[in-house]
Amino acid sequence: MVFWKRLFSNSETVTTSGTTQFDGELLELTDDSLTQSRIVFSTERDLDLYELEELCDAVGWARRPLRKVKKALECSYLVVSMWEVRNNRRRLIGFARATSDHAFNATIWDVVVHPTVQKQGLGKALMKYTIKKLRSDDISNITLFADPHVVDFYRRLGFVLDPEGIKGMFWYPN
Amino acid sequence: MVFWKRLFSNSETVTTSGTTQFDGELLELTDDSLTQSRIVFSTERDLDLYELEELCDAVGWARRPLRKVKKALECSYLVVSMWEVRNNRRRLIGFARATSDHAFNATIWDVVVHPTVQKQGLGKALMKYTIKKLRSDDISNITLFADPHVVDFYRRLGFVLDPEGIKGMFWYPN
Repeated sequence: MVFWKRLFSNSETVTTSGTTQFDGELLELTDDSLTQSRIVFSTERDLDLYELEELCDAVGWARRPLRKVKKALECSYLVVSMWEVRNNRRRLIGFARATSDHAFNATIWDVVVHPTVQKQGLGKALMKYTIKKLRSDDISNITLFADPHVVDFYRRLGFVLDPEGIKGMFWYPN
Repeated sequence: MVFWKRLFSNSETVTTSGTTQFDGELLELTDDSLTQSRIVFSTERDLDLYELEELCDAVGWARRPLRKVKKALECSYLVVSMWEVRNNRRRLIGFARATSDHAFNATIWDVVVHPTVQKQGLGKALMKYTIKKLRSDDISNITLFADPHVVDFYRRLGFVLDPEGIKGMFWYPN
């Protein structure tokens, strides 16, 4: 696992050719002696909703109606899933999505990495992949709303808090 | 004009029947002795881009490529325009739009009211209309990024700054 971390620092995303079960993009290949495992990213939005729910459960998020989750996946501008592929079996280990006007702005939501693979640089890799996809579509304004405990994580990725005093606000009925 | 202000405090949005040139929703009717004018809201996204640019110019916004503006209007979840209709002539006096995943989240962008009609409650009316539209679609999380000088304006509308420490962040290449 530590091997991944080192690799991510100068990683290049390449199209996978060896993954037969799964159509996506290979981030890195690691060979930890006995098993060969890959981290694969996909922008395919036809995810197994139960698998996604399981991932969100693992980090303690409140459950949401699957009907609405399905709609949100369909109508997000970008859906990114991160998979661990080992011996041709894949496991969903990360997820992020973004809404957008397809032109100027994107807002990233629901960034999650499975607790069993956290602290290995995979969150950073997931975000870098997401940003790269948005930037490749010429979207200049990438935004998000960060919980207090992940502000520093996003800061290290190049996100700026309240630039020029611009404040994130949420509407509540008054 | 002052008459509007008073009316907005207990306004009810009703479908217009008297506006022949323009298909939208009537917010209020005012009769200031000689002319009859209406404020009409529309969610029609096929706006005259030059008219919109003129409105944005009037508040000093940097110009944006019309090709991208067109795309942003097409791909926003909601586009709201506010019109002053007088003697069957209409004038674009306000605008707002929102991106969304059509399920959970919406983010409001590009809120603008023409300087000649500011300070009359029309910005508030525009936002209330926008929020009402989003809420009618069962979108629970309405967000925006507010410039410092309009934070109090949004606060009065029920927007909360950094709720539970959640921070708005913008990505810049590092």
